[in-house]
Amino acid sequence: MAGRSRDMVVEPVAGTRGAAGAGPASGAPAGSAAEVLGGYLHGRAAEFLRALRAHAREAGGSGGGPGPDGAERDGTAPAVDGLRAAARRLGGTLFTYRPLLDPAWADSLRTELSWLAGTLGREHAYAARLERLLGALHRLAGPAPSAETFGGPAGDGSAGPVVRAGSRAGAVAREKSALPVGAARAGALLDRQLTLARTRAHSAALQALGSARFHAVADAVALLASEAPFRADEARVGLPAPAVLEPLAEQARRHLADAVAALPLSRAGAPYNADGLARSLATEARQDAAWDQVRVLLRLCRYAQEVLEARVGPDARTRSAGEALERHRQASAAAAAAASAAATPRIAPATAYALGVLHADQRHEVEAARFTFGHHWSPGL
Amino acid sequence: MAGRSRDMVVEPVAGTRGAAGAGPASGAPAGSAAEVLGGYLHGRAAEFLRALRAHAREAGGSGGGPGPDGAERDGTAPAVDGLRAAARRLGGTLFTYRPLLDPAWADSLRTELSWLAGTLGREHAYAARLERLLGALHRLAGPAPSAETFGGPAGDGSAGPVVRAGSRAGAVAREKSALPVGAARAGALLDRQLTLARTRAHSAALQALGSARFHAVADAVALLASEAPFRADEARVGLPAPAVLEPLAEQARRHLADAVAALPLSRAGAPYNADGLARSLATEARQDAAWDQVRVLLRLCRYAQEVLEARVGPDARTRSAGEALERHRQASAAAAAAASAAATPRIAPATAYALGVLHADQRHEVEAARFTFGHHWSPGL
Repeated sequence: MAGRSRDMVVEPVAGTRGAAGAGPASGAPAGSAAEVLGGYLHGRAAEFLRALRAHAREAGGSGGGPGPDGAERDGTAPAVDGLRAAARRLGGTLFTYRPLLDPAWADSLRTELSWLAGTLGREHAYAARLERLLGALHRLAGPAPSAETFGGPAGDGSAGPVVRAGSRAGAVAREKSALPVGAARAGALLDRQLTLARTRAHSAALQALGSARFHAVADAVALLASEAPFRADEARVGLPAPAVLEPLAEQARRHLADAVAALPLSRAGAPYNADGLARSLATEARQDAAWDQVRVLLRLCRYAQEVLEARVGPDARTRSAGEALERHRQASAAAAAAASAAATPRIAPATAYALGVLHADQRHEVEAARFTFGHHWSPGL
Repeated sequence: MAGRSRDMVVEPVAGTRGAAGAGPASGAPAGSAAEVLGGYLHGRAAEFLRALRAHAREAGGSGGGPGPDGAERDGTAPAVDGLRAAARRLGGTLFTYRPLLDPAWADSLRTELSWLAGTLGREHAYAARLERLLGALHRLAGPAPSAETFGGPAGDGSAGPVVRAGSRAGAVAREKSALPVGAARAGALLDRQLTLARTRAHSAALQALGSARFHAVADAVALLASEAPFRADEARVGLPAPAVLEPLAEQARRHLADAVAALPLSRAGAPYNADGLARSLATEARQDAAWDQVRVLLRLCRYAQEVLEARVGPDARTRSAGEALERHRQASAAAAAAASAAATPRIAPATAYALGVLHADQRHEVEAARFTFGHHWSPGL
């Protein structure tokens, strides 16, 4: 088990699992359910603790704030990403294999892990959203907003922490023609609002990592790294892993299949059906929720499968479908950000116009993501 | 020839040719090039004159203005549609088969016919554009703008000749929830601007039909109905039609093929490639022109083919491709109308926002039309 655990620990999470997917399946796991599930939890817990130590070092160095490097651009330090990834996997595993674990312990830890993952993920999400929206403005309006235009008298309070985006866009602006003022103002407004939200999320994440609540989570995970608390009266944990774990993974797959069956896949499978735009802009959130639920269930299935096939990432179909759903979530959130920016008082009509173009463009991305998902999920359609 | 001509005359143009396309090909036309080409020109000229008489009756009756019926909804009386269709076919035929005809006469008549077709087509185009834009707003924002909302204090002068659109939309609005104010104001603004443009186009068309310039065209067409002036020194007109006409039709097809080859078809063949939105909004017109040129060339080929196969409409592929290009033209123009409406001074930000959404939505329609065209034209892609 120790060796197996080390494999798990050494194996990079999330980011590069896709590449690992190319490798051959290791087949059914050896050992009892307790050994296999315990080994997986052990591995993720070790990752969690290593990321925590790395964060402590980073925090000691740069103060934990955004640095000047790539980590700054996507808004999160790698250590925080590691914490988040391990927390998500631990929580997902506790959910899928709950029948084998001490229920009270599993439920409370899962609640805390999802609080943590959510808190740590927000800064990254805001940074990615801003990047996506500025990129879309760039695509829609030619060159990205330049620092000058950003800082300029946009008439809608576009002054603010826009230096970063400005410097990023400046280079592009120089080599291309001038941007329609509306798009420049919209970019400035979005940069101001999302940078503010990101900064708040960053402080909230740091605060969380220093909180007693977090330390309690860390203690629980540390315990997990040594010994996973199985259900006392559960004899199954001593049986061979496949017989015990596979049915629970299968149940997760059934939940996913049911959720997918509820989606208007045949419609999404027809390109340019305007489904992403068809409903009232006010009801977008409702129609997106069903798709986002599928994204979550698909991720749970992936984690459940990791327990059974330690060294194997998701197959190409699952990975592509998951990526499409991730794009769906991001485009949906970006469209909402454009819409809420348009509700800012006293913005210029040109700004509102550009935000409207941006909103529709991101809804189009939502529609495209649904098409891509359906394409990968059921090529027959 | 008389019998053949009558066939041509009796056969409805444009609208229902599609249905005729289902019929079997009549194969190569009998008779000399002069007889076949002359017969076709004769037929179109007779249609032109009949439509002219019908228009005179209508004008005598309803005063030629928009009536309460279907003709009102698409903005043109059937007689005017008939005049336009016959003028387009005559002009196209004079262009394709010019080498067989008196060049000076053919060129001058063609110029006049395209002036006439353009003038007569404008009212219909504005009416269709308004219908498309209000329909898109309805789709995007739920119920269509209601007359009340239209008439209401929109803050951007949305009062105006909106009764028709109001009454059309009222029914929908009653059975659905309230429309976001921005979309209602945008609908009111577009209705005001496009109804004004349509009214002007209507007057311009009536004026044209009463002008000396038009009477000169009518005289030339009347001459054509009796005798088509062939090129004096052109011996080919006496030869069998296929040998003479087919090469000229083939030349038209080559021009079309060359124009299509210049399109980014492989790109348009990939759904959601955002090509319709990828370029700066300012350069949309330029990228659309190449596609519109193909639309015109495809129509010329259709007319050239009508001369050779009188009773047969375009094949399904040509018809679908042509419909896609027509949708491309309409969506492109509708997007431009939304953009220019957004440039109206003193509009509310909410109005500008809705117009931005509308602009992007119509650009997506442009992209979708390109995809559809590529799909029909070269299914391999």
